[in-house]
Amino acid sequence: MPLVHIHLGRGRATYEQKKELIARVTDTFVDVLGSDKDKVWVVLHEVPRSEWGIGGKPIAEPDR
Amino acid sequence: MPLVHIHLGRGRATYEQKKELIARVTDTFVDVLGSDKDKVWVVLHEVPRSEWGIGGKPIAEPDR
Amino acid sequence: MPLVHIHLGRGRATYEQKKELIARVTDTFVDVLGSDKDKVWVVLHEVPRSEWGIGGKPIAEPDR
Amino acid sequence: MPLVHIHLGRGRATYEQKKELIARVTDTFVDVLGSDKDKVWVVLHEVPRSEWGIGGKPIAEPDR
Amino acid sequence: MPLVHIHLGRGRATYEQKKELIARVTDTFVDVLGSDKDKVWVVLHEVPRSEWGIGGKPIAEPDR
Amino acid sequence: MPLVHIHLGRGRATYEQKKELIARVTDTFVDVLGSDKDKVWVVLHEVPRSEWGIGGKPIAEPDR
Repeated sequence: MPLVHIHLGRGRATYEQKKELIARVTDTFVDVLGSDKDKVWVVLHEVPRSEWGIGGKPIAEPDR
Repeated sequence: MPLVHIHLGRGRATYEQKKELIARVTDTFVDVLGSDKDKVWVVLHEVPRSEWGIGGKPIAEPDR
Repeated sequence: MPLVHIHLGRGRATYEQKKELIARVTDTFVDVLGSDKDKVWVVLHEVPRSEWGIGGKPIAEPDR
Repeated sequence: MPLVHIHLGRGRATYEQKKELIARVTDTFVDVLGSDKDKVWVVLHEVPRSEWGIGGKPIAEPDR
Repeated sequence: MPLVHIHLGRGRATYEQKKELIARVTDTFVDVLGSDKDKVWVVLHEVPRSEWGIGGKPIAEPDR
Repeated sequence: MPLVHIHLGRGRATYEQKKELIARVTDTFVDVLGSDKDKVWVVLHEVPRSEWGIGGKPIAEPDR
């Protein structure tokens, strides 16, 4: 603990960006709460933007 | 807010049906709670039916 | 299936409203996808508004 | 109810192992809590190991 | 990893039962997948039964 | 989007620390992905440490 689930639009982040997100989110818990770094878990979930609704509508058409 | 995560069997809904689910679920919050429509998020997650267990067994065999 | 997790600001809905949310969200799946009504699960999670950040800030101060 | 979401590294379990996980987790609720077996839902989510961070780093490189 | 989120009706399990659920679910991953025991996380979430809808209705009235 | 769910041990963070977590996690998405700050949602969930199992055991006894 702590445990972080991140939901992102699919294809919005490269692997380098995902690594940076994981590193920085983890460091945030170490800095702010003094968490044991090895006990910070960060799980990314990519969601197709056609499956993500804001204001009653998907934010993008499906990929073809 | 509100935030809604929907888990569905993969392939159970067409894109038109997903759009309708998002629209109607969003309207439900606007109607019942007076939510600001642009602050209603609905995220769909498709789950293979072979990875969904009810009563101790997957509800379908894996696709081939 | 389907399975729906709803996250709401704590205290934003009365029990009557929650019942109506559950009923209408369930009916949406029955209408749009032909889901078996008894296989629609809707789980509500109330989240204190001081624990919900939008734009980098909690949307309300903690209750006292 | 109960409802169980399991997150696993993608490709870490065969279908036979997933069936066994679902069966045994379900039985655990029946045994320990006396749950109605048909009301135990277990949903598996496979997560690529490159999207799972422990200690600030993904636990594996992306598949190619 | 693996990571397990369990949602239970509030008050349905004693602390002794929760400990047994955690122990047995963890052992299941060790036995079936050969998971490293210290890398199995199990998080319990108690949900009031009045906030859990099956078939369009909460499964219990709110506690008073 | 993006959407972040954070699970923390109950009582592990003060409100000031929670505000800092929300601010810094949000900024991480703005910096790394160029996300629109107002479209970053961060939801905190406090979990009693007696309901969080690592290695087959809760990480703390229940509060009394």
